[in-house]
Amino acid sequence: MARKPKKLLNHPNDVPAEQLEGLLYACGGKLSKVDGYSGVVRKDIAEQQVVVVTGGGSGHEPMFAGFVGKGLADAAALGEIFASPSPDIIIETTKAAQKGQGVLFVYGNYAGDNMNFDIAAELLEEEGIAVKTVRVTDDISAAPIERMSERRGVAGDMYVLKIAGAAVQAGYDLDALHKVTNKANFNTRTMGVALAACSIPQTGKFNFELADDELELGMGIHGETGVRRQKLTSADEINQEIVERICADIGLQAGDRVCVTINNLGAATYTELLISNRKVHQELEKRGIQVYDTLIGSFCTSQEMSGYSVTLFRLDDELQKLYDLPCDGFAWRK
Amino acid sequence: MARKPKKLLNHPNDVPAEQLEGLLYACGGKLSKVDGYSGVVRKDIAEQQVVVVTGGGSGHEPMFAGFVGKGLADAAALGEIFASPSPDIIIETTKAAQKGQGVLFVYGNYAGDNMNFDIAAELLEEEGIAVKTVRVTDDISAAPIERMSERRGVAGDMYVLKIAGAAVQAGYDLDALHKVTNKANFNTRTMGVALAACSIPQTGKFNFELADDELELGMGIHGETGVRRQKLTSADEINQEIVERICADIGLQAGDRVCVTINNLGAATYTELLISNRKVHQELEKRGIQVYDTLIGSFCTSQEMSGYSVTLFRLDDELQKLYDLPCDGFAWRK
Repeated sequence: MARKPKKLLNHPNDVPAEQLEGLLYACGGKLSKVDGYSGVVRKDIAEQQVVVVTGGGSGHEPMFAGFVGKGLADAAALGEIFASPSPDIIIETTKAAQKGQGVLFVYGNYAGDNMNFDIAAELLEEEGIAVKTVRVTDDISAAPIERMSERRGVAGDMYVLKIAGAAVQAGYDLDALHKVTNKANFNTRTMGVALAACSIPQTGKFNFELADDELELGMGIHGETGVRRQKLTSADEINQEIVERICADIGLQAGDRVCVTINNLGAATYTELLISNRKVHQELEKRGIQVYDTLIGSFCTSQEMSGYSVTLFRLDDELQKLYDLPCDGFAWRK
Repeated sequence: MARKPKKLLNHPNDVPAEQLEGLLYACGGKLSKVDGYSGVVRKDIAEQQVVVVTGGGSGHEPMFAGFVGKGLADAAALGEIFASPSPDIIIETTKAAQKGQGVLFVYGNYAGDNMNFDIAAELLEEEGIAVKTVRVTDDISAAPIERMSERRGVAGDMYVLKIAGAAVQAGYDLDALHKVTNKANFNTRTMGVALAACSIPQTGKFNFELADDELELGMGIHGETGVRRQKLTSADEINQEIVERICADIGLQAGDRVCVTINNLGAATYTELLISNRKVHQELEKRGIQVYDTLIGSFCTSQEMSGYSVTLFRLDDELQKLYDLPCDGFAWRK
């Protein structure tokens, strides 16, 4: 229990800036940094398009900057580790991206992000820039379905951003974009499991502790309390419960089509991700639910948290058509 | 030091089979399993093509099965965790894939793999199937350049497989394929750093131990001893040394073009991968070496080993043309 976080870093305070630099290098010149602010904008935004702006705390890489690119978000405003970007970062990032056709904010539903993006939206509106907002609420562990607006946004951000970016490419106006992005969010549900906690470089301490023989089901990507702690059990048992809970929550039925993501929260082995994917597919098969596409990897992480999350994204014809469009973010090329 | 491995699995003995099932599900029907053997073959092999067969121990997912697909390997023979596939697995996998135009074996240079693939090659040759072999030797830590044939194959497998698969698509015959794949291997160099060890599910024990304040430079992907153990230092210092060593080893000069991969060995945070990528690019920039493409993620892992490896792949015009061709493996779609 006295184990300390161990990472190969430079000065902890430089982590957000240095990892952003690393991501910009990886993108080979497709993104530019907003001058003086921790925001990134893709360089090839079309002159007459609505823009999608995302963002949130750092520490979940490759979310959010890795999902900036053609067919995904147009820009991302980035805070310190696990802390919302301030309104001025959001405002300057949005101004650097927007083309006078309106802006859609898409971000995870957290008090700090909600406050800062709302302040930014208000100030941008005062300057004549139309802003609409979709808060991602895919984490079914955070609140019951009746209080969906209290749920956190986690790995499901990726599907919501994919659909928003695709709708922009398909020529949707701001109202239509807002509507289809809300639908994408409604059709995205996630649940996670953790075997060990995450830590913030600046504190050098774990955000929570789990005993050597325990797991936590449904914890959040900053270490928010989950639905249950229990003794370590078999992977199949946990993965079956996750699928059951998500299917019940969204009301999935035989004949439905879904995309599956097994998202590494940080330190899960690829072995665990694959063994999870096996059971998830088996459970969906059993229910007659068709899997349209599967992604396995690190999309929305929580530092060295050991564990993963399972996301199901239900498609209808409109969402499938948008899903099929190409995209070109560092974390998702299609 | 008494920490035990902690993973969410079913029975440890079922890990290789279950994770392969998970990968097959993820591939959406593009691969088939070899009946009765732990091998996979892509379904859309052309009737008149040379085939590329790879393989090795399990436990390094998504290597090797994740690199089976059009423009990559045509088949993979898979052993138990960290153990070579037996000759019969290699033979049956090869027979399920081959089209009478010859076979190229491409695999990491380890005693067990060498022995079993060589036995398989001999027996296949006796049946009239032409087999040539390229052993990947990208790990510069394993032996000095004069003894390159003693070096291990690690994450660099991916570039060697990419070029081999592309050359097949481009219509190279077995001799030309063998030649260009050898060239790809010669142009691929890797070095890794670990902060914590890997473990095999069946033993439930770590393969080595590192003190809380130590790192190991140049260890192998099964925990083979590296070039040095030392106290934890800054990321920049280690990444600079890795680039220096690789550049010297391969003789990189201003004007050269390389591809960069920062490969998560298991439990490295995405933060560490990005901060490594930043320094690697800065060091290459300083030397006037041009980066053609960058990949960051889990390509060749070592269970929960905490750390990453850096691979540089030097391009010439032929290799670049082949690199640019599309590929469609689960772990690499381009």
